[in-house]
Order: sequence, then C-alpha cells, then structure tokens
Amino acid sequence: MIWYKSVARTLFGGNMAPLEKKRLEYRPKIPGVLHDLSRVRFVPAEKTAHVREEIAHDFPKTKDRSAHRLMSAIPVKINSLRIGVFFSGGPAAGGHNVIWGLFEALQQLGAGSCLIGFLSGALGLLENQFKNLSQKAIDPYRNQGGFDLIGTGRTKIETEAQMAAAMQSVQEHRLDGLVVIGGDDSNTNAAHLAEYFLRKGCKTAVIGVPKTIDGDLRSSEIEIAFGFDSACKTYAETIGNICRDAKSTQKYYHFIKLMGRSASHIALECAFATQPNLTLIGEEKKGLEQIVEEIVCLIEQRKQAGKEYGVILIPEGLIEFVPEMQGLIQEPRLLDLDPHGNVKVSQIETEKLLASLVKKKLPSLAAQEHFLGYEGRCCFPSNFDANYAYSLGLAATLAVRDGLTGAICSISHLHKSPEEWTVNASPIVSLMVMEKRRGKEIPVIQKAIVDIKGTLFVKFSSLRKDWEMEDRYLYPGPIQFFGDVQSEPPNTLKESV
Amino acid sequence: MIWYKSVARTLFGGNMAPLEKKRLEYRPKIPGVLHDLSRVRFVPAEKTAHVREEIAHDFPKTKDRSAHRLMSAIPVKINSLRIGVFFSGGPAAGGHNVIWGLFEALQQLGAGSCLIGFLSGALGLLENQFKNLSQKAIDPYRNQGGFDLIGTGRTKIETEAQMAAAMQSVQEHRLDGLVVIGGDDSNTNAAHLAEYFLRKGCKTAVIGVPKTIDGDLRSSEIEIAFGFDSACKTYAETIGNICRDAKSTQKYYHFIKLMGRSASHIALECAFATQPNLTLIGEEKKGLEQIVEEIVCLIEQRKQAGKEYGVILIPEGLIEFVPEMQGLIQEPRLLDLDPHGNVKVSQIETEKLLASLVKKKLPSLAAQEHFLGYEGRCCFPSNFDANYAYSLGLAATLAVRDGLTGAICSISHLHKSPEEWTVNASPIVSLMVMEKRRGKEIPVIQKAIVDIKGTLFVKFSSLRKDWEMEDRYLYPGPIQFFGDVQSEPPNTLKESV
Repeated sequence: MIWYKSVARTLFGGNMAPLEKKRLEYRPKIPGVLHDLSRVRFVPAEKTAHVREEIAHDFPKTKDRSAHRLMSAIPVKINSLRIGVFFSGGPAAGGHNVIWGLFEALQQLGAGSCLIGFLSGALGLLENQFKNLSQKAIDPYRNQGGFDLIGTGRTKIETEAQMAAAMQSVQEHRLDGLVVIGGDDSNTNAAHLAEYFLRKGCKTAVIGVPKTIDGDLRSSEIEIAFGFDSACKTYAETIGNICRDAKSTQKYYHFIKLMGRSASHIALECAFATQPNLTLIGEEKKGLEQIVEEIVCLIEQRKQAGKEYGVILIPEGLIEFVPEMQGLIQEPRLLDLDPHGNVKVSQIETEKLLASLVKKKLPSLAAQEHFLGYEGRCCFPSNFDANYAYSLGLAATLAVRDGLTGAICSISHLHKSPEEWTVNASPIVSLMVMEKRRGKEIPVIQKAIVDIKGTLFVKFSSLRKDWEMEDRYLYPGPIQFFGDVQSEPPNTLKESV
Repeated sequence: MIWYKSVARTLFGGNMAPLEKKRLEYRPKIPGVLHDLSRVRFVPAEKTAHVREEIAHDFPKTKDRSAHRLMSAIPVKINSLRIGVFFSGGPAAGGHNVIWGLFEALQQLGAGSCLIGFLSGALGLLENQFKNLSQKAIDPYRNQGGFDLIGTGRTKIETEAQMAAAMQSVQEHRLDGLVVIGGDDSNTNAAHLAEYFLRKGCKTAVIGVPKTIDGDLRSSEIEIAFGFDSACKTYAETIGNICRDAKSTQKYYHFIKLMGRSASHIALECAFATQPNLTLIGEEKKGLEQIVEEIVCLIEQRKQAGKEYGVILIPEGLIEFVPEMQGLIQEPRLLDLDPHGNVKVSQIETEKLLASLVKKKLPSLAAQEHFLGYEGRCCFPSNFDANYAYSLGLAATLAVRDGLTGAICSISHLHKSPEEWTVNASPIVSLMVMEKRRGKEIPVIQKAIVDIKGTLFVKFSSLRKDWEMEDRYLYPGPIQFFGDVQSEPPNTLKESV
C-alpha cells in the first residue's frame, strides 16, 4: 500500500485534464439552513422514529433515539472537533465532496479541529492506517470523481475483536466522531459500532452518510443516496449514443446490462432518460420464459414494421427475481467459476444469456451486448451530486457537534432548489429489518426495491408500449457542468414528491 | 424500411433531451475562406497530384486531375445546383453537419438548388430510395450525433450493373453532384464512380468527404477525418472514469479494447488523453508472447510497489499485427462463429483473450474486460467536429460548383482556430495504392496506420515508462460544449504540424 505515501496530485500542474482543473472552482450550492452553521442545531423531530421490536432488542443503547432535523437554534458552543472518516464499498460520484463538506464545517468550528481519513475503507480504521486531511490534501479533490483521496474497501466491522480494534483507533485519535460513507451494509455496521461504543463508554459518535449508485438505500427521509444521479446520467449518455447508433445503422439489437445490484432503480431512471424499446424491471418478477417471449415478440413486431434494430435495458439484478435462473446457471460458457468451482451469480452475463436465448428462437438476430458499470461509479459528480454530497458532509459534522450517534444524515426536498433543501438525521436502527443472511436472521437496513405500484413505475408502465414500436429515443448526451443546460435531478426523486 | 416515412423528429417538442435542443442553437465556426462563397473558387494548387502508374491505368479519365485549393477568386456564376448525398459505413459524429453545410451552401447559390439524401447508404442510390432534404428536414439534426436523418449502409458500388444503376438514379434527379460521406473504401468507390460517369458522358460530379472514427483515412492533405475527435473524447471519458475506479478500489486490472479497425490511432489518442498504465500499439508488431510477457511484468512490478490495479488499452486491430494469432483463434470459448462455422476475426474478444493468457501466468489476477465501440460513433459531435464537418459540407458544394469530380474535400491547419483553416480538394486517385483483396490486386485508398517513427508515437514512447509505474491518470470527463473549458482538437493532429 504505497499510494497514500505518494505526493498528492499536483494542483494546477500539468497532470490534470482541463475539466479537472475547472471543476476545482465550482462552489457547491447548499441548503439555506447550512449558510451559517453557528445558528442551527439538530433538534428532535415531532415524530419519534419507529424501531421494530426484534431490532430494538439488539440495540439497547440506541433504540430510543429520535429522528432529528436541522433547525434555526443556537447550538451548544464547541471550540473544536476531531473527526475520522472512511469510504466503504464501491465508489460513487461525490465522495470527495462529503470530505470537503466535513472539513469546511470543521474549519468553521475552530482552529483545533481536525479531520483524519482512514485508508482503504474500514480496513484502515482497524489497522489505524490513516491520512491527515488538511486543506492542501483536500483541495485537488474538490468536485472530482472517485474515492482515491483515501481509497475504499469492503472490510466489515462485525466481530467483537474488530469492534475493539475500531475503538482503539478512534480513541488513539481522540475522535469526537467517526463518519462512515457507505451503502446499506456499511450503515448497518455503523449502527452496530455506535451501539458498541456506547456500551463500552467510548464517547466517539458514529454518523452515517448515504452513498450508493444503486439507488436502493432509501427511506421516508433518505430520498436517494449521493452518486445515483451521476451514475445514471453517465449510463444514459452511453445508452442514448447506442440508441442513435441502432437507428442510424438499423442492423443490431443492443442488449445493455446496467450495474446496480438487486434493485432496478438505475434501469428505470435510465429508461426515462433515453426511452429505449424495452426495459426489463426485476421487480415485476417475470419468469425467464416470459421475458424471452416478450423480447421475441418485440423483435418480430418491429420487424413487421420494417425495424430490425432496437435497444433493450437489463438491470444487473434481474436474475435474482427470476425463479428458473437457478437451473440455467449451469450453462458453462456464460459463467466464470470461483476458485472452488462454484458459480458466481453476480458474474452471470445476463445480457449474453438473454441474447442467446432469444437467438435460439430467432436465429437471424444480430445482437450486440454491453455492460455499463465501473464507468458510472467514478465519473465527475453532476452539479446535483456535487451540491448534495458537500451538503451531507457539512451536515455530518453538525451531527457530531450536536451529540448525535447511530444516525444517518439525509436531505429532503431534493427535487427543489438546494436553497430549499432540509437537513435530517435518522436513527439507523429505524431503517432496519430482520433478514436471513447466510442462514441466520440478522438486523440489516432494508434495501429499497422498485415499487411497482409507485408513481414512477406506473408512469413508465403507461409509456412503455409506445416506446416499443415507435422510436422515442432521447439522446441526453454527456453531463454538462456549465452554461444554461442545467441538469435536472433524477426522475427517481419524483417518487418521493 | 418504414422510418423514412415517419414524421420527422418534433422540433422543440417534448421528444428531445435538453442538450439536443440546446445544441440546435450552436453556430459552427468556419474558415475565413468560407465566409463569402461568392468570392472564392477552387483553383489548381502549384503542385500537381502524383498518381502511381499502376493506378493511373485504371483511371484514364481522372488520372490527370490537379489538387485544388479554395482561394479568393470570382467563381463562374451558377444559379442553382442539384446535389445528392449519402452516408457510407459506420456512423461518425458530425455527419448531419456535413449535410447541413451542403444545404446552406446550396441555399446561398440560388433558389433552384436542391439536396437529395439517398437512404441507407449506397443502397438508396442503387434503388433510388431517397428523401428531399429541406430546411425543415435538416433543422432538427443540426449539431446532433448519428446518421439517422437518412441512415447508412455498407453496400458497395463495384459491378458494372451497380454503376449503371447509380448513374440512372443521378440522371433521374438531374444531379450536378453526388457527395459520398465515407471512409477509405467508400471514397475508393467514389473514385470509380467518377471515372465511370465521365466515361459514360454523365455530367454528375462525384465528391468525397472523409468520414471515419478510426483515424486511418489520412494523407498529406487530409489531416484527420471528421468523427475521430468526438469518438476519442467519448472513449477517453470512460477510460478516465475507469482509471479513477481502478485507483479508488485498488483491486482490478481493466483490459479495455477500443474500436478502430486495423490502425491504433484511437488507442494512441486516448493514451495521451488519459495516461493509462499500458497502451498496446499494433503497429509495433510485437508477438503475442512478448505482449503477454510485458503485461505480466507490468503487473508484477506494480505489485512490488504495492499497486495491485491498473488500466490497459488494447486497439481492436492489435491481432492483425500479431503473427501467432492465427493459431490461437481456435480456442472456441472466445469466439463467435459465423453461419458457416468460420471464425470471424473481427469478433475476437482480444481483451478477454489477453486477460486469460495473463491469468494463466498470474492466477490471482483480478481482471475486468471492456469494449468501447458503438457509443463513440453516435455521440454528439464535439465543437471541433461540428465545425469541421459543417465546413466540409460547405466545401463539397463548392467543389461541385467549381467543376471538380473524383475529388475528396479536406481541410488543413486543423490545429489552428477555424478562421485559419484552409480548404482543399485532392484527386482521390492520388491517395491510392494497389492492394491484394480477396486474392486480387486492386486499387484502394491507402490506410494510414500509426507511424512508429512519427512525432506522436515517439513522444508516447518517451512517456510510457513513467505511466507504467506512476499513476499519471488524467480524467478528461464528459465533452463540454459550453463555458470556457474549450476542448482542444485531437493530439493526433500534432503529427501533421
């Protein structure tokens, strides 16, 4: 692990692309309530957060916490704070802005404040591998993509020994707060850590920040995690280009698989952005035969109308909803095996599988398969994600200042202008349900899947027949950061309105 | 074939994405010499174009044509012109702007002028399937990607019967000129057609416009074809994002194959734009064993430095330069077979093949493979390509007006501001060499491959060792059309400076 020893990216040097430099100048837009941090405080919301009984049992110290909202109020005066932070799981655009927001809020609190970044995810916390996040260290990462300032990882903090190691690190740094930037499982970890710290008399608060491109970390207060918007816009650019290619050359059906784990949020968002001929949504729980039949039918009907081309979106998680899939994953050509010879379900090339099954019924099919994934995790954050993530960073510092723990920060009214956004912090335990994992019932944050009775899916459902036969392709093009083509927040937010 | 009957895309309607609408407003920048078309004329250049003797033999009517340059001079007065146009081969960003440029120049010539678009490539010419390209038809396609206004195709015009059919179409429309927007083979076809028309006493001029994302249609006068810049910038966006992901997660080697046929121009251009750890260049003609050894060595050295991740660019045409490849293409898992059971070399998944060969030597390698192709052909044209393609369209109309035929339009000094660009037309035959195709020596336009003694490769060669071990990744991000982050023309142009 050498990279954190290496010299920081040369600011304004020859080693940055023009857009990298230019984005350093962007000043994120923030909620009105965050303009003067010395005049706001997290206060308990009217409604107490509901925690399921079976969950409460595991969290005696944190089960009775309130949901909080940031309001005009004079906070307890604090001269300085020490905060540690780490990224957890796959990258999402905006991560560096969370760190920037944390830092800027700390700067406003006082000179003694400091920010420590643990390296390579929770592993850095356990092994006390860290980096001091100074102004100079953070500056070249403002509004930039990726998590490379401090890296990330998938290490979990589950065992008693791991909890103890984490506590040792935070105590060594005399941290007032530990901020976990992660998805559902990482925030579940954060809740356990908060509980553990309280049980052991450790005063370090644990605060979560919702990060995931997948769009599945949502609740009544978390409208969407940061990163989703940028990823969807990046995928939509490519999908739109491919739609245009399909229509220009009129010779291929493009089967495009989209990253996003179980839920089909990314596919649904991209469907509205590009209006392809068919978008499969896992949550409809169609059988494999039905899916193949629908594709065959689409292709035959379009052929009758003289159209021998088209674009089909396939969410990565589709197969998890398809019962027959278990039988089919025997077909060896389509799969990589792990070192033990087991099938890795996540590596199933669904786009190739579907194309090959359709081809069995329509041998003349000319198919091109694509997988869009990594390029959407580390893109530049859209203005929306840049604003949102930075604001979450400011909020997380305030959550530590105001004595919260086991809470996840969120922002509501995201469909409005940033000025009107409201800032919340919810007890993580209130998001949890019991779920069977590796044969054992454990408390986890509930994954939000596409609600097929929700506004967005119903709207999609009313339009898709038209998109099948008529080419209603939209070509959103690359994310624009300047000028008056302002990018709208994601359609998925309309679900929450 | 129904699409050309369908209603044109609703202008300013709800069926366009915001950027699509906004790009309609962009006014391409043009060379100073194109500001007033009534004061310029194509005049013979000082140097006569050299035509190889074996080529001249096949082109008795067109072998002695001069190269021309557009200069200040009063042209022969012409009241109107009738021009036909078609796209040929794969799409490239800017195609619609060539048509727009053709149209606008015709408008300036006089009211009787008209522009006919043949549908689905040369097929439309042979079958006289066409569309009248009015202002109303063209308007919604200004500065947009793709070729969908009139479609494209790969039909060639080779046989006597095809030539005759083409002549019948152009005569039926009383065309003064036929403009072929295509790559090397399409322009070879254009040269044959020009010769044939002269031989048969048909007065229709045939003018070529250089189009290809591959960067392999180049000569002393053609610095680059339109479409290359937009494609490379689109690929570079994705490659940069993947570099950032690699560095953030530190767990994968990404093997990225890039479209672009035989030559490695796209890979070289993208290498400068993103500075990945390794870029293979087919023209170095390394053996497969050597390539695999180099990758293994890179991975091992980086591992010693604590870096277990990286990014490797692989040009699509690499395999054509690798002698051992013929033996290896037996490995069945990596290939699709055509209906006769033959291996389709162009479908070899080189990125997967190389990853699997490296993995045999380094079993712990965690590789992710990508193929970037179609998304770069139908992206929005960059400002560079929008300006360039529009200018080529204006120039092609003038070439017809000024009585040229069998000529390909080009623009020089592309690395300067558009105001300073110069406009040329070269005899296509001067670009030709004899080449064996399907066992027969025939005249074709010489494909330009990467010159490994040229400025650009030598520069690359001096930098690449540093890029291997140090992470010099650049993150160019999405193409920006507005604001002061102006995109530079491609590095590849530096070769011509």
